[in-house]
Amino acid sequence: MKRTKAIIDCDPGHDDAVAILLAARHFDLLGVTTVGGNAPVWRVTENALRVLELIGRPEVPVARGAAGPILGSLPRAGERVHGATGLDGAELPRGSNRVITKGAVEFLVETVMGNPGTVVIATGPLTNLALAMRVEPRLAKSIARLSIMGGSATWGNVTAAAEFNAWADPEAAHIVFSSGARITMCGLDLTRQAAVGPETIARFRAVGTHTAEVVADLLEHYRAAAERVYGTPAVPLHDPCAVAALAAPELFEVTPAHVAVELRGEETRGMTVVDRRFLGAEAAEQRRAAGAPEPNCRLATRVDAEGLFRLVEETLAACP
Amino acid sequence: MKRTKAIIDCDPGHDDAVAILLAARHFDLLGVTTVGGNAPVWRVTENALRVLELIGRPEVPVARGAAGPILGSLPRAGERVHGATGLDGAELPRGSNRVITKGAVEFLVETVMGNPGTVVIATGPLTNLALAMRVEPRLAKSIARLSIMGGSATWGNVTAAAEFNAWADPEAAHIVFSSGARITMCGLDLTRQAAVGPETIARFRAVGTHTAEVVADLLEHYRAAAERVYGTPAVPLHDPCAVAALAAPELFEVTPAHVAVELRGEETRGMTVVDRRFLGAEAAEQRRAAGAPEPNCRLATRVDAEGLFRLVEETLAACP
Amino acid sequence: MKRTKAIIDCDPGHDDAVAILLAARHFDLLGVTTVGGNAPVWRVTENALRVLELIGRPEVPVARGAAGPILGSLPRAGERVHGATGLDGAELPRGSNRVITKGAVEFLVETVMGNPGTVVIATGPLTNLALAMRVEPRLAKSIARLSIMGGSATWGNVTAAAEFNAWADPEAAHIVFSSGARITMCGLDLTRQAAVGPETIARFRAVGTHTAEVVADLLEHYRAAAERVYGTPAVPLHDPCAVAALAAPELFEVTPAHVAVELRGEETRGMTVVDRRFLGAEAAEQRRAAGAPEPNCRLATRVDAEGLFRLVEETLAACP
Amino acid sequence: MKRTKAIIDCDPGHDDAVAILLAARHFDLLGVTTVGGNAPVWRVTENALRVLELIGRPEVPVARGAAGPILGSLPRAGERVHGATGLDGAELPRGSNRVITKGAVEFLVETVMGNPGTVVIATGPLTNLALAMRVEPRLAKSIARLSIMGGSATWGNVTAAAEFNAWADPEAAHIVFSSGARITMCGLDLTRQAAVGPETIARFRAVGTHTAEVVADLLEHYRAAAERVYGTPAVPLHDPCAVAALAAPELFEVTPAHVAVELRGEETRGMTVVDRRFLGAEAAEQRRAAGAPEPNCRLATRVDAEGLFRLVEETLAACP
Repeated sequence: MKRTKAIIDCDPGHDDAVAILLAARHFDLLGVTTVGGNAPVWRVTENALRVLELIGRPEVPVARGAAGPILGSLPRAGERVHGATGLDGAELPRGSNRVITKGAVEFLVETVMGNPGTVVIATGPLTNLALAMRVEPRLAKSIARLSIMGGSATWGNVTAAAEFNAWADPEAAHIVFSSGARITMCGLDLTRQAAVGPETIARFRAVGTHTAEVVADLLEHYRAAAERVYGTPAVPLHDPCAVAALAAPELFEVTPAHVAVELRGEETRGMTVVDRRFLGAEAAEQRRAAGAPEPNCRLATRVDAEGLFRLVEETLAACP
Repeated sequence: MKRTKAIIDCDPGHDDAVAILLAARHFDLLGVTTVGGNAPVWRVTENALRVLELIGRPEVPVARGAAGPILGSLPRAGERVHGATGLDGAELPRGSNRVITKGAVEFLVETVMGNPGTVVIATGPLTNLALAMRVEPRLAKSIARLSIMGGSATWGNVTAAAEFNAWADPEAAHIVFSSGARITMCGLDLTRQAAVGPETIARFRAVGTHTAEVVADLLEHYRAAAERVYGTPAVPLHDPCAVAALAAPELFEVTPAHVAVELRGEETRGMTVVDRRFLGAEAAEQRRAAGAPEPNCRLATRVDAEGLFRLVEETLAACP
Repeated sequence: MKRTKAIIDCDPGHDDAVAILLAARHFDLLGVTTVGGNAPVWRVTENALRVLELIGRPEVPVARGAAGPILGSLPRAGERVHGATGLDGAELPRGSNRVITKGAVEFLVETVMGNPGTVVIATGPLTNLALAMRVEPRLAKSIARLSIMGGSATWGNVTAAAEFNAWADPEAAHIVFSSGARITMCGLDLTRQAAVGPETIARFRAVGTHTAEVVADLLEHYRAAAERVYGTPAVPLHDPCAVAALAAPELFEVTPAHVAVELRGEETRGMTVVDRRFLGAEAAEQRRAAGAPEPNCRLATRVDAEGLFRLVEETLAACP
Repeated sequence: MKRTKAIIDCDPGHDDAVAILLAARHFDLLGVTTVGGNAPVWRVTENALRVLELIGRPEVPVARGAAGPILGSLPRAGERVHGATGLDGAELPRGSNRVITKGAVEFLVETVMGNPGTVVIATGPLTNLALAMRVEPRLAKSIARLSIMGGSATWGNVTAAAEFNAWADPEAAHIVFSSGARITMCGLDLTRQAAVGPETIARFRAVGTHTAEVVADLLEHYRAAAERVYGTPAVPLHDPCAVAALAAPELFEVTPAHVAVELRGEETRGMTVVDRRFLGAEAAEQRRAAGAPEPNCRLATRVDAEGLFRLVEETLAACP
């Protein structure tokens, strides 16, 4: 069977690392593009190269992207949970693979436009994608599906109202969500359903491969950091959800929804405002009468966490 | 037993009418102040006078308040569910009671400052209270407790993010929530737990007093209007919650929370941003480490709806 | 001849002090209301009492007003030029006069509503007036003329875009400018034409009265402070312009203009946006075609500085 | 003598057309990039091709750029003065020259990075340049000088506060002005000094070349349209100023200034806020004491209009 072509745009990041593993196994991975987010772009680019080396896929092209958001500069909030390297907790191997010459924006435009049917998975701030959509206006409609880890349908993490990726570049998120692209949104409400505590991490470790060992070390570090910050013993496996939503859609419930990104609020900048008054197709009549906007994405509302964990285990088992 | 003195600041409004009934029965009601909201201020003032006439309490002073918000002018969204009169669905008696000469702001300041221990229940836009707090800086700390129906800890009604009362005068809500007053907040998350459908309305009617008959007519009209707008067969009994939270606190669960009011957002203006990351006293350490603000109110999170309905029935039974 | 009745709402402040002198001489001064601005409200209230004592007018009622703006709290920028007391540079006498019991808002409402034809001169943040207009909606149209020192038709002083009084309470300025009141605006463009350097101060001192001596001391302190901050040897006699615009209108050129107050800008909050594209009556046709708003005030554009200085000299000569 | 290499990024537009003429004569013109502004991007691109055909320079590459701003969509205000084609008033020849394959962003990045010493003249919304700066972070410092027609140091044209180019894409203007590029700003204050009335247009026509004839027709149409909108008989020759500021710097006075772009204001969005309190090098000490930002551009404050008109005449004389 021919596998779907995919690009993952990410800022590894502990959960991004697992997302790369899933994407490399379940898709024909055309490339990895990086963006400043959980750590500075040079760090996360280095991390992407090392993750690919770890899993024996050094040939996958890595293109470096934006160092910071469209407006302003990169916030440092990501360090609180991901550490200074963006991937604290394990030492990953340094191979001979290097970033390609092309930047992420150019790579995204050329690869998507040149490979019809390509899906994009975005697990960092949406800067690269937004710039690419502005440089090539046909891009948004050319992405077969865009699965985003970002935003929240209720409350945030980095602020009371906003999730980190959307908050780190609200203008980019606004551009992407209003682009007309076929979006699946995996927000915090969803990813909080897939939180890993010590027991799940032990399960991952028990898979027994070298990659499983490293991933377990990374996740334990991540979990402990999140516990310090939020007081909760389990940490959401955020980014893998965005890969799984395309690789294993049977694990998810989705509903059409309208998502707006708040650009101006003092308390709410970067919030993804989901119109939950009129969620789903059945509320269409009331939505129209109220003058509320039409859905612009599929909002993932439920995930089968056990199914997701099994997908991770199976992926770890297939790695070196 | 000496009853607690209370003022209700409201914009009747169907649910405000029931709130006035509860307040008149369970408190030593020192006065009713009115504010433009569900309908223009002259309408809601007229409605307040008629409700008091209906229940045989024409001697309670009614003071007219603000026609519109601190900035801008009164939106007309209230008409969608409350109708042009603000109290469509039943004809209430017109007695000889009249508004007092003093305006609502002056009445609030003088009555609260002159009656230590007075509680205030606010079920409309917070314009009067905010102005009164600015004219008399000692007012906020002089209110024994301020129970507010307004805002939401998740999503809104009048917009995707905002609840009507907070949205109708965000600056006033901001002033009140940052005033240092002892606030109990009954938001949409709470009041949606106390929704009345046809069966509950039939129960109220079955109480058999004239007031019960009129209230049932009003609620049926209100319910049907809300069903048209939102597609849901039951309508939240919003405002009575704010009275009951003080009159029957055993029916409620509350938790300390920080609530900010968004003034600037394009998508979120008037949203009450509840910091749900660090809710309750147990999260104090993480909250401080994150630099998040201290709680400024008690957020009511659960209501015993059946208990509330019984309180309404008992009140209707005691009316003419 | 019957003199026009006036109230001055102010935050003395060096230039406010001179404004009080002019108001006391050229109007039937019904009262002085104070507002936090150049210094905290208790300081400026104390200063108002002392200025009235200095000029032998301790019977004029002084009503204390708002300690801070409608939203937020009083900025301290005023101290940079007015010093910690708000009136550094001379020791004014402390008499036995005291503030009245009524607050400024109540005093403004009652005095204006009870004395048809009263003009109001506002030389501080517009908090008191805005609150009074909200508490008594008829107030705006009842003020015979409202002369404001505030705003700018070009650039600011406290920020690149905003003048201190408008910036210190933008919401209040917005309420007042959109109230429908008959406004004369004396902004920085105007008051910069009436800057006093060492020579003008020497002229004032040469008048020879005790008051002249004290005023010269105050102005010299004020001038030197402004020179340190802005690098200019002469300091605008801001607030006296607002009194003179009513007392000696022949010294001024005015033109109808629309003034909006920016509430949201990051760089421009508190800016008075004067639509200079269509200034004056002759541009009415183009203004309407462009959909630009109608004039809402008389903008004072030119002042005869020499005439103003003579008015001050004459006033100083008439003081003790 | 080797001429300076230049790119002009523009949206012709009547005054842009004259700017292209000046750029083609006084620089080694490496290319013309277009951007939606005075008219939709396909119109202004067509116009650029025709202007180059008119002056016998069809070999100059034209790269099409952004259809609209970074956020939102292209406003249509440009039509009021430039007409539906963006270049109403004369029929320009359609040659065989066509846009190149590369888009404007890619062309700007490659051409500037590959040709050290290249200057850029921007006479439309700054969308292309901002995107190029985000895609290639080294671009801003690689432009030898960036001369911008845009913004205002006092008041606007399209709104009371904002000039068209800055207002049409405020986020782009913000990115460019905060990029660290070596900017010369020619705002409305400057270009209003170079307004052409019927007499100046007659002078241009009298040059006698075919190009002079066409340009005179265009300018007369432009002038008449501006007179209808603003009520002034002469129209500023906006865009040619930005070319002349580099080609004939002796005609200009410039001063270091800080320019911020307002992104959020309701009345001031797109305003270029020039800090005129501390203009020029001599105010550096006061500026620092006030915590005001350092200059980020050279603000052109005076232009020798007669010198500019002669430059235009000389250019028209050298055209076919």
